[in-house]
Amino acid sequence: MIAEKMKGFVKNSSVIRAMFEEGKRLSAIYGVDQVYDFSLGNPNVAAPEAVKTAICEILAQENPVETHGYMNNSGYEEVRAAIAESLNRRFGTEFDENSIVMTVGAAGGLNVILKTLLNPGDEVLVFAPFFGEYRSYVENYDGVLKTVPADRETFQPNLQVFESMITEKTKAVIVNSPNNPSGVVYSEDTVRELARILREMEQKYGTSIYLISDEPYRELVYDQREVPYLTNYYHNTVVDYSYSKSLSLPGERIGYLVLPKELDDAQDIRSAANVATRILGFVNAPSLMQKAVARCLEEKVDLDYYDRNRKALCDGLERCGFSFVRPQGAFYLFMKSPVEDEAMFCEKAREYRILMVPGSSFACPGYVRIAYCVAYETIMNAMPGFRKLAADYGLKGSESCCRSGQEG
Amino acid sequence: MIAEKMKGFVKNSSVIRAMFEEGKRLSAIYGVDQVYDFSLGNPNVAAPEAVKTAICEILAQENPVETHGYMNNSGYEEVRAAIAESLNRRFGTEFDENSIVMTVGAAGGLNVILKTLLNPGDEVLVFAPFFGEYRSYVENYDGVLKTVPADRETFQPNLQVFESMITEKTKAVIVNSPNNPSGVVYSEDTVRELARILREMEQKYGTSIYLISDEPYRELVYDQREVPYLTNYYHNTVVDYSYSKSLSLPGERIGYLVLPKELDDAQDIRSAANVATRILGFVNAPSLMQKAVARCLEEKVDLDYYDRNRKALCDGLERCGFSFVRPQGAFYLFMKSPVEDEAMFCEKAREYRILMVPGSSFACPGYVRIAYCVAYETIMNAMPGFRKLAADYGLKGSESCCRSGQEG
Repeated sequence: MIAEKMKGFVKNSSVIRAMFEEGKRLSAIYGVDQVYDFSLGNPNVAAPEAVKTAICEILAQENPVETHGYMNNSGYEEVRAAIAESLNRRFGTEFDENSIVMTVGAAGGLNVILKTLLNPGDEVLVFAPFFGEYRSYVENYDGVLKTVPADRETFQPNLQVFESMITEKTKAVIVNSPNNPSGVVYSEDTVRELARILREMEQKYGTSIYLISDEPYRELVYDQREVPYLTNYYHNTVVDYSYSKSLSLPGERIGYLVLPKELDDAQDIRSAANVATRILGFVNAPSLMQKAVARCLEEKVDLDYYDRNRKALCDGLERCGFSFVRPQGAFYLFMKSPVEDEAMFCEKAREYRILMVPGSSFACPGYVRIAYCVAYETIMNAMPGFRKLAADYGLKGSESCCRSGQEG
Repeated sequence: MIAEKMKGFVKNSSVIRAMFEEGKRLSAIYGVDQVYDFSLGNPNVAAPEAVKTAICEILAQENPVETHGYMNNSGYEEVRAAIAESLNRRFGTEFDENSIVMTVGAAGGLNVILKTLLNPGDEVLVFAPFFGEYRSYVENYDGVLKTVPADRETFQPNLQVFESMITEKTKAVIVNSPNNPSGVVYSEDTVRELARILREMEQKYGTSIYLISDEPYRELVYDQREVPYLTNYYHNTVVDYSYSKSLSLPGERIGYLVLPKELDDAQDIRSAANVATRILGFVNAPSLMQKAVARCLEEKVDLDYYDRNRKALCDGLERCGFSFVRPQGAFYLFMKSPVEDEAMFCEKAREYRILMVPGSSFACPGYVRIAYCVAYETIMNAMPGFRKLAADYGLKGSESCCRSGQEG
């Protein structure tokens, strides 16, 4: 009796569900510390103490009718103004409260902007590898998702192929840097070239092509790397942000869209995003959390924890002989499967109680995603299993790998 | 450049927006206490102190990674179990954690269940007067909303006409008791007859017809009136609940769906609702608030405040000579306009700085909605204006009205 469209969505979901169940099954048999679950992007570093302080202060100081009440569907004006100001300070932008729509996380934000923009049949381009949910979000509004194949050397977007795939039906492009699942940060060269192509194609077809920059991992970068702020490079850029990772609040569902005044039809888009927020049933982003994040704009989680994990994982896997592009941001590592069928590789890894997500879930078969938002000990304790796994496939580890293997 | 479908939604929204702006404009000229804004359903009674206590205790006692983290898309198991148990105790039902999907408020819940159920062209029946957003929610999934005309004597659902409007395409019926905008509570007789018709029509057409009971006002009833729990009367009932009004948390976006095991295809519906929660971008209901409401299941806002407002408003308007069915629940009164064109009546009322919503917004022209979730003083201070308004239309007030008019 459920909707036909939902049947496909439910079927796809059962793969992820099966992995989750497998983790629970293995934990029940071997104990939770004997299972190395790298499958989930659920932050394991606690929210900064400032979040707790902010919430308690708001509850103590402010009027509960206002704190927990309805406000403009786009969010509290003062919260939006504070966010705009913080962005302006950091990125030299010129936003104000009218540029910001508070959202139920980045997933909520993407649904709002896609509902706002898409007519049935409109094409949305994404770069493999990409977060698989984009497909569902686009199909929610009868858009057509088109995948630009991956550049497997660098995992920077494949811009040559991209250019050839743009048509007069291309309404939007979703980019995601730092990237889930590759951990790659788009370079400024990439961004400039991307912007050039979009401008040329807009001119060629006489259309507006909206660049949607999905940035839940913006704050999670290592080695002082800069993440270019895309509105500074291309006029039709919409930024989709979330505090899920920067403040470790994924369950709270709090984020925002930036809708710059430079957008083609900016005023219509802002009005429609406000209405879309309402009629999709979000109504508004959670009110207390809006006020809480506004008091924590300069805060972020302990990045050193993730960075230590990153280094330990990269070093360990390299020594085993695995291949990957070293991640520069987020908390994912995208590793080449030693065999073409990476689902088989994942299954083999499960023998060592190592859980990873097949790259096919990100439109990039032949790779696996390892989420390192886990305890440091999980990474260290998983290494003997990774070494055996490498050996099973005849990978040639480095000297130090073998030595550390003998020590283990 | 915005989606064609959004253009209509934006246009409709500008009516409400215009009223909101008018309220602000009048407040700026005359002062906020000289404007009698009865247009908004935003609770003015504070959340119970227990909510604040619960939030602070959770933050102090629980692990922040879990408190603010992802969980099952349907919500925390222990929260769902606690809600199921509370419902079972109060209504003699037999729910468990699998019956409950936590939602981003009642609006989120309606979107989830409609996404789950509707194929394009499926018909959804609603009873006038009804909350206008239902139309947007149904159209989000390309369903067709059909309105059963109001029974203007009682504002109980017009079941005879309803029966004649059911076809083989009828997939769902949305009911809302206590009702926005009429304040009427469906009687047990009404509910039994509604259930009988639905069972007969299911048999006649060999279909499943889902009864969606939207119940954000369940706890807001007066004179000890009982609100029948619909799953006890009809097997294919889905309950949509929100804490927005019962705990005065509308901005927090927290509620739940009840999906009883007796539903046709219950297992598919539960799985699809879980997936719909995810792919619509809700992902999950706000995590801290899930835990907070689970600790406040026996709490509710100070109903006496709304009840005092209700009595003052009813008595005052009656004395002026206005006609309406006395509300039994929620915080709305649905008053007959003295002239057919109720928009003109609303405009006339604005001369006395009284703001009301035309009944056309609820598919019931000729009436106006007065939301009495306002300060008691607003009601008392608006009465001279209501009296003058009544006089303008030649309504015959009662003795006490005239006397109190002279006193004023």
